[in-house]
Amino acid sequence: MLLYTIYLVAIVAEAMSGAIMGMRRGMDLFGICMIGTVTALGGGTVRDVLLGHYPLGWIAHPEYLLFTIGAAVVTAFVARYLHHLRAVFLLVDGLGLVAFCVIGCDIAMSAKMHPAIVVLAGMITGVFGGLLRDILCNQIPLVLQREVYATVALFTGSLYVGLLYFKVDSSVAQLASIGAGFLFRFLALHFEWRLPNFNGDRIRGFE
Amino acid sequence: MLLYTIYLVAIVAEAMSGAIMGMRRGMDLFGICMIGTVTALGGGTVRDVLLGHYPLGWIAHPEYLLFTIGAAVVTAFVARYLHHLRAVFLLVDGLGLVAFCVIGCDIAMSAKMHPAIVVLAGMITGVFGGLLRDILCNQIPLVLQREVYATVALFTGSLYVGLLYFKVDSSVAQLASIGAGFLFRFLALHFEWRLPNFNGDRIRGFE
Amino acid sequence: MLLYTIYLVAIVAEAMSGAIMGMRRGMDLFGICMIGTVTALGGGTVRDVLLGHYPLGWIAHPEYLLFTIGAAVVTAFVARYLHHLRAVFLLVDGLGLVAFCVIGCDIAMSAKMHPAIVVLAGMITGVFGGLLRDILCNQIPLVLQREVYATVALFTGSLYVGLLYFKVDSSVAQLASIGAGFLFRFLALHFEWRLPNFNGDRIRGFE
Repeated sequence: MLLYTIYLVAIVAEAMSGAIMGMRRGMDLFGICMIGTVTALGGGTVRDVLLGHYPLGWIAHPEYLLFTIGAAVVTAFVARYLHHLRAVFLLVDGLGLVAFCVIGCDIAMSAKMHPAIVVLAGMITGVFGGLLRDILCNQIPLVLQREVYATVALFTGSLYVGLLYFKVDSSVAQLASIGAGFLFRFLALHFEWRLPNFNGDRIRGFE
Repeated sequence: MLLYTIYLVAIVAEAMSGAIMGMRRGMDLFGICMIGTVTALGGGTVRDVLLGHYPLGWIAHPEYLLFTIGAAVVTAFVARYLHHLRAVFLLVDGLGLVAFCVIGCDIAMSAKMHPAIVVLAGMITGVFGGLLRDILCNQIPLVLQREVYATVALFTGSLYVGLLYFKVDSSVAQLASIGAGFLFRFLALHFEWRLPNFNGDRIRGFE
Repeated sequence: MLLYTIYLVAIVAEAMSGAIMGMRRGMDLFGICMIGTVTALGGGTVRDVLLGHYPLGWIAHPEYLLFTIGAAVVTAFVARYLHHLRAVFLLVDGLGLVAFCVIGCDIAMSAKMHPAIVVLAGMITGVFGGLLRDILCNQIPLVLQREVYATVALFTGSLYVGLLYFKVDSSVAQLASIGAGFLFRFLALHFEWRLPNFNGDRIRGFE
């Protein structure tokens, strides 16, 4: 129930962040609604298509679309006043990332997947919404370039699967993973942690 | 039967429009055939994958590929003479949009989907071919930016679902939706209707 | 068994080529692992999703992910020394293309698909990994633009299906198709064969 509430808050926040990026690219109202929805629900959609887990979440629960489209429309009209809320956004986005991740792990586990696939399903749920948003905005996905965003998802999913493996109670494992993952994300943002980059300019001979 | 004929004309027109965009991007003959095919059949493919509706249309009917590949090859050789036909193209494309939309609604209804998902399935069928074409051509999808293209699909699908809800005969509902949707598209093109854009440059604080 | 060995060598080579392209785009370690994995396994994934063939290869065999992620990590650290190996890479990549193609045909045949879809499934397996890599790197897919890469896949798949149609023994058909396809690819690289391009600048009137 708590997870469900966090999920709804998270898809609203993701839809708003997608809508803002769409506005920056000059999209019209349809484009803003669609990119908000893809950002919010794209991760779970990719996960379910890859797992063959039908029906998709938003097809079984079309009311999710009301949340994402509503959030995108509201954002379109109030976005200019939102810059005061940037810190709130980043925190809600971080909460969404870890909640999406735990939900994705749950769905893969209910389909009896290998633990590595369970963690991967969590990561896909967390990061593919933003990745599809960036593809639609014609830019190299941010998640591939900087910040330990995907690493937070890897950590959260691994912790969750590990706790369940050691027979920790399911809701305790959820809360602990979400709490620890969110703390990790907060610290990563605060201290601007990065994964190593590699100086690709020094690679020659491959065109 | 009429719907099937319109469908075949529409996939040929969509394949030609995809092929022309591929040629503008310097694609070779394979690229032109592939982008033509993706433009024509991509919307239905995305819809069926999201609905879990297998087999896909062009897998059950591989002859569709003959139409799209043939149209792309012919376009590659005659494209320089086609600019006289621009108005014809826009009209056939508009007819294709509304026909794809009605077909997409039918498929979602046959799978007993929620009315909102039925309309969305129609919209996805209508607009995702062009959206995938634009992603392959490395540009922000036109449908997200301007013209009331997606709005026409929303209108057509909603009208169709509404007419069926009020027990209108199925073929009457098809014809009425296609006619009204096509008229809407024609008026939108003629009067250059646009959805509202939002000045994204004025949004600060979100990087 | 030989095909399986070739497959593993091929996914390692594809993962390395994806990782190198990711490094050139300034991706971090996660991005490099992900783009390597998508390049290696993306073609088979798209094929299986389109055919509705579940579970996907890397979900049934998560150890494939170890190969692709391992190859990407190693590449990240040794890439600057790899330019001596460019010719080796191109050859292994060509071998991978034809092996992927034969494997893709096999999977579509086991699902009793139409021969045209079988050949197409082989082509998709061969070329979609690189295509997804290019989309993630925000560039027009190379396979749509130049070199007879997709043509090699079309040739290999058609030859394989043709040989099986004439009751040639399955392993003989595999070896002959892989051998002939690889020779084709080698000659295409050596003589820089291209498919015809069309001067898209001369097409006016379609915006």
